[in-house]
Amino acid sequence: MLKEKDPSILFSEATSGDRRSLGRLITMIEDGDKQSTVISSLAFKTPGHSHLIGITGAPGAGKSTLTSAVVSLYRKAGKSVAVLAIDPSSPFSGGAILGDRVRMGDHVLDPGVYVRSLATRGELGGLAACVPEVARLMDSMSFDIVIIETVGVGQVEVEIAALADTTVVVVNPGWGDAVQANKAGLMEIADIFVVNKSDRPGAKETVRDIEAMLDMSNLTTWRPPVCQTVGIDGSGAADLCEKIQMHNEFADESGLLSQHRSNRLKEEIERKVASELFSRAKSMMGKASVKSLTECVIKGELDPHEAAIRVVDLVLVEEGSNGQKS
Amino acid sequence: MLKEKDPSILFSEATSGDRRSLGRLITMIEDGDKQSTVISSLAFKTPGHSHLIGITGAPGAGKSTLTSAVVSLYRKAGKSVAVLAIDPSSPFSGGAILGDRVRMGDHVLDPGVYVRSLATRGELGGLAACVPEVARLMDSMSFDIVIIETVGVGQVEVEIAALADTTVVVVNPGWGDAVQANKAGLMEIADIFVVNKSDRPGAKETVRDIEAMLDMSNLTTWRPPVCQTVGIDGSGAADLCEKIQMHNEFADESGLLSQHRSNRLKEEIERKVASELFSRAKSMMGKASVKSLTECVIKGELDPHEAAIRVVDLVLVEEGSNGQKS
Repeated sequence: MLKEKDPSILFSEATSGDRRSLGRLITMIEDGDKQSTVISSLAFKTPGHSHLIGITGAPGAGKSTLTSAVVSLYRKAGKSVAVLAIDPSSPFSGGAILGDRVRMGDHVLDPGVYVRSLATRGELGGLAACVPEVARLMDSMSFDIVIIETVGVGQVEVEIAALADTTVVVVNPGWGDAVQANKAGLMEIADIFVVNKSDRPGAKETVRDIEAMLDMSNLTTWRPPVCQTVGIDGSGAADLCEKIQMHNEFADESGLLSQHRSNRLKEEIERKVASELFSRAKSMMGKASVKSLTECVIKGELDPHEAAIRVVDLVLVEEGSNGQKS
Repeated sequence: MLKEKDPSILFSEATSGDRRSLGRLITMIEDGDKQSTVISSLAFKTPGHSHLIGITGAPGAGKSTLTSAVVSLYRKAGKSVAVLAIDPSSPFSGGAILGDRVRMGDHVLDPGVYVRSLATRGELGGLAACVPEVARLMDSMSFDIVIIETVGVGQVEVEIAALADTTVVVVNPGWGDAVQANKAGLMEIADIFVVNKSDRPGAKETVRDIEAMLDMSNLTTWRPPVCQTVGIDGSGAADLCEKIQMHNEFADESGLLSQHRSNRLKEEIERKVASELFSRAKSMMGKASVKSLTECVIKGELDPHEAAIRVVDLVLVEEGSNGQKS
């Protein structure tokens, strides 16, 4: 184990380009370390100008390869990029086939690119709580572009993708792929669609399916464009970057971006409130009065919902009177 | 829209075999309907004897086909089965290829089998909160076997699989599949491993990889057996059912089962406590004092964590004093 350093020292080291310090800060946030609130506060007080891009889609849609192609273009344009990969089968987190790993490896030696996988186990909603924090840290480190890559399969993963300023949904040509994206809740969160692997048969039909779904939905302001890409040779990636830029400008000028960011902050506060209340509730669970309620449930005398209501009343009375005293 | 019926009437109708009433009860739980606490309470007071089996694995591992084969065997043994599918790409929820859908269709006309897909969108943790409730409802309906099928990809989905009495992790032959399962957190929750599609090359190697990982882990009581199956022709399914039975007996006799169930109830209470506190906090978010805190965060004057702590203090003081009054 490395000796714990003061997070503000790590933060200033990270700001001056020390990637190991940056990595340690992220780990502290991931682990829900006590010091992570200090890090968040520092990051919050040092806002940057990052454009936060979410890239999501089913496993095997070719998100990492596409991300790599997009990163190359941003680098050519002189922009610094951070990639946060939240994907158990992603090359970044070590699950995918060797070829992909090598492909993303193009950027490993580039100091203008920072790649990091995120995984938080244990507490429910831990990942959703930690991603906005890490994204904000990246912003305070002055990255121009921050990409969050998630697999659009799990409920939490879809919610995380929706946190971005611009959300890109990746599908593949093929029967029902667009329909499936719709079922998984991906249509609602998309600002841009990408039909990746567009050199395969059925690409045009998939584009048409998505356009048809867009025709049927109630779009008031921004109609998501549908791009075609081949991640593996990079074709279409420039068009995608252009559409991302267009969306960013539109969102900025129309006031949607600041509205979206305000909403995100509100949701973040709500989530933090919930997690704070939960940890207080957890500490209550050990108390004698609560233990006996739990025993009643295990014996079948009281149902879990009734027990929970009684625990909440106990927590509120106790903590409330403490709060008034202090 | 169907007119809302009293949940206790629906419950007794469902108990006497009315599947439409059962379906409506589940929908009420999924939607977080106010009446769902009544349903939970009824279900809790009418315990059955279900064995709760979780089946999980990566998308495409052949979980549904394997589940169908297992269901056939239980039916031959005269046992009634409920299948709860939590999987955006599952045939039950409509995402998968037509072949799979037809295959599980074998059981559609069998009154001893009940198949239902579950999806809860919106609130974080909604799915994890609703699955134990629905599983308990199935138990009170006297199903012998309740199978929960999830895709072991998302964080929440892995947690849901771990709720079962017996958790089966399905992998496929191939380089790194076992390793990937390990990374996704599936090794920790497995009571039984299945290498499905074992007619493909690499099956033996995958079994060996899993055994090697088990050798390295600290197993104190139960060592998960590793089965080989071919879901599509049902071979190995009988062996799997036998291993499931063995695990159930072991867990029952060793006291692990009742301990696991007690822990599950404790976790359920915790989750309900958190969700109750969260909904009280949410109603607080509209109040003037909280709104001004949120405004400070949006202006960058206060960081989200500090704001959350202040909101919690406000909630506790206010609700606490209400509680004391009543």
